[in-house]
Amino acid sequence: MDHLTTQELESEQQIYSAEIISIGTELLLGQTVNTNARDLACELSELGISNYYQAVVGDNPVRMEAVIKQGLGRSDLVITTGGLGPTEDDITMEVCAKIAGTELVFNPEAEKWIRDRIVSHHYVLTSNNWKQAMLPKAAKILFNAVGTAPGALFQFDYAGKSRFLAVLPGPPLEMNTMFERELKPWLRTKTSRSLQHIYIRTTGLGESRLTSMISDIIHEQSTVSIAPYAEDGEVVLRLSVMASSDQTSEELKEIFQPVLNQIRNRLGEYIYSVENKTLPQIVVEHLSAQNAKVSFAESCTAGLLSAELASAPGASNVFSGSIIVYANELKKSLLGVSAEILQSDGAVSEECAIAMAKGIRSLLQTDYAVSVTGIAGPEGGTAVKPVGTVWIGLSECSGTFARHFILRGGRNRIRRIAALNALDLLRRQISAE
Amino acid sequence: MDHLTTQELESEQQIYSAEIISIGTELLLGQTVNTNARDLACELSELGISNYYQAVVGDNPVRMEAVIKQGLGRSDLVITTGGLGPTEDDITMEVCAKIAGTELVFNPEAEKWIRDRIVSHHYVLTSNNWKQAMLPKAAKILFNAVGTAPGALFQFDYAGKSRFLAVLPGPPLEMNTMFERELKPWLRTKTSRSLQHIYIRTTGLGESRLTSMISDIIHEQSTVSIAPYAEDGEVVLRLSVMASSDQTSEELKEIFQPVLNQIRNRLGEYIYSVENKTLPQIVVEHLSAQNAKVSFAESCTAGLLSAELASAPGASNVFSGSIIVYANELKKSLLGVSAEILQSDGAVSEECAIAMAKGIRSLLQTDYAVSVTGIAGPEGGTAVKPVGTVWIGLSECSGTFARHFILRGGRNRIRRIAALNALDLLRRQISAE
Repeated sequence: MDHLTTQELESEQQIYSAEIISIGTELLLGQTVNTNARDLACELSELGISNYYQAVVGDNPVRMEAVIKQGLGRSDLVITTGGLGPTEDDITMEVCAKIAGTELVFNPEAEKWIRDRIVSHHYVLTSNNWKQAMLPKAAKILFNAVGTAPGALFQFDYAGKSRFLAVLPGPPLEMNTMFERELKPWLRTKTSRSLQHIYIRTTGLGESRLTSMISDIIHEQSTVSIAPYAEDGEVVLRLSVMASSDQTSEELKEIFQPVLNQIRNRLGEYIYSVENKTLPQIVVEHLSAQNAKVSFAESCTAGLLSAELASAPGASNVFSGSIIVYANELKKSLLGVSAEILQSDGAVSEECAIAMAKGIRSLLQTDYAVSVTGIAGPEGGTAVKPVGTVWIGLSECSGTFARHFILRGGRNRIRRIAALNALDLLRRQISAE
Repeated sequence: MDHLTTQELESEQQIYSAEIISIGTELLLGQTVNTNARDLACELSELGISNYYQAVVGDNPVRMEAVIKQGLGRSDLVITTGGLGPTEDDITMEVCAKIAGTELVFNPEAEKWIRDRIVSHHYVLTSNNWKQAMLPKAAKILFNAVGTAPGALFQFDYAGKSRFLAVLPGPPLEMNTMFERELKPWLRTKTSRSLQHIYIRTTGLGESRLTSMISDIIHEQSTVSIAPYAEDGEVVLRLSVMASSDQTSEELKEIFQPVLNQIRNRLGEYIYSVENKTLPQIVVEHLSAQNAKVSFAESCTAGLLSAELASAPGASNVFSGSIIVYANELKKSLLGVSAEILQSDGAVSEECAIAMAKGIRSLLQTDYAVSVTGIAGPEGGTAVKPVGTVWIGLSECSGTFARHFILRGGRNRIRRIAALNALDLLRRQISAE
């Protein structure tokens, strides 16, 4: 399909604004969350193209046509996603061709490509698959590298203005791949700006506390915009500059650097990365640099801490293994936690966290070891040790200690945040050395 | 704020259609995904209220007013989310009051409530917080149980028709809580229908294969609609019936039952739940019923399998613990996998998976044990054992076996799907007994 009969667009027109229209009954019924709109909005923002409106509409020809036309009336480019499937409900290409003043014609190359793809992927060929080979006569056809539905890019005059209409498939992988390969390179030639970012990743502070710590820096800024956003247990600060295409990366660095330095001075060790790396990646890098190994003893997190570290490629060089001791009996038999500690202090205690960390470090012979023991709920909390009580132990050659946390939220949030805090405690310890 | 001076709405008017308008620059910049629209669409669909349009617009008074007015022109109810914060950018309440033909007045009760809340949560009181106490004169005020911004429900005539406009906050927890407590009970009185569901959860089949296995059942249906949707490694079939408020649950059961039976006959053991329970919940229930314990030996999944099982409350009754053997040395020293197996068959082999499962079962003295060993990538694949090769072992008193899987996707997808397959293998084994 690289050789599809297609039309090249030769307009010199710049694109300043774009509108995203998501098509699909599943969105109107709330069956799926609209990640396509988010992904496209993000891409447009990076390209310096303004997005003032997004819309969702179903597979109804009248409503769809009205919504697309409204978009064409107010934006240079309209991007639709969805409704390119092989069923009778899927009418987006037909509606868009009609709006663009062209018609759908049978494209034998597309039909052959769809047929080959169905055979090679062992899909079931339905009588409807030919439908995806009905493509607009006057449009650039967009290649679908990961599905059977081609897309299209129309250019035409609408209400006296030259407009673009891009028609992309709905499945997120197909949409993103087609955008990335077929639309983005072309869009780059249509805009002279682009948004450049630096990501500062932090743990250990809530969003509101972090924001209040740097609120004066945020408000002073004009060239560099600073947007905090919270993920589970983390806050990411995104620093952005709208750059023109003739600015060098050196010039951009000079714009970012003073703000970055101000924030670094203010937030210090809460920052774990200014390179948009994840916490597991940073920990793996630190450990690799020291040629050190780590092991974990997990109770309430039950494997989340280990799984989180192992999510980073290269983890096998630094991560030996873990023991998950859900039953108290195993804390004794495998990790050597004494019956006295379990009896007098309990399984969720400083003493137990320390004994677990020591035990796993000695059993697996690693340089560092981290232990987690806590009450994730919904049951098991007491007045003295409420649900959310977590002890995290850290053992290394120079000694062993444990930290106390009280985490809020449901069972699985407590477990996730406990794992993240354990990883962060390890990061602080190894980066201090 | 339960005693806020507020207006009760006394219209008899039914609500047939509603439109969702999400307000916020962060959505237009692609910084957040619009879960609010999904959640509201889902709720409306459950309530039997049609949703034909959704829109996203920024904090711009002219564009916001135009989008809300367009919604009022075509739907009985418009729900907005976002733009109720304390900053100058947050103008939704003002714009909506203007559209409804009323004005914002200072509400001392709301101000007191906001002040108390800020004090009790140790928030920083900014000079702008008073803004959230400026509330519409003629509207029902909606209580915010988890934040400082109250919402509002307006009723007024628009273009000759009686319309409702509900104004909710943007943070998902605040939006959902306010909808659930303040809007939903009222909406139930405004509609005589509701959508009723049964969820059939399956593993082991891809969406397209599963759909083709029951495509005739799907097409034959008129009263019961059947919607498949894929999650990672699972496919959920949602059976829905639009019920009127006078139908009994017995009558509904009679409508669902024949379709449910047809699908059960066709999909058999691929179905793990018809009660919308998760796979970990089902496994915990099965093990509890047998009063049996389980342990895991994980290599490539590195704790994901254990963490997944432990996500179900009550897991501590059936889950003893696990050993994560990332380093090959530990497969020998902790699980007793022989050097011969590691040398001749390799760590990713049927023999190794069997030895790991036997080893952990004997070490932790459990009734069942499951092992996972595989190549998650990105490195480590060979022509014979490509990335995605996974062996899953299962050991119980009657014997031990292992199954071979080749999983597609990136490192973390392979790890997640391997953990899910391991859990499903355990489910099939224990439910067969």
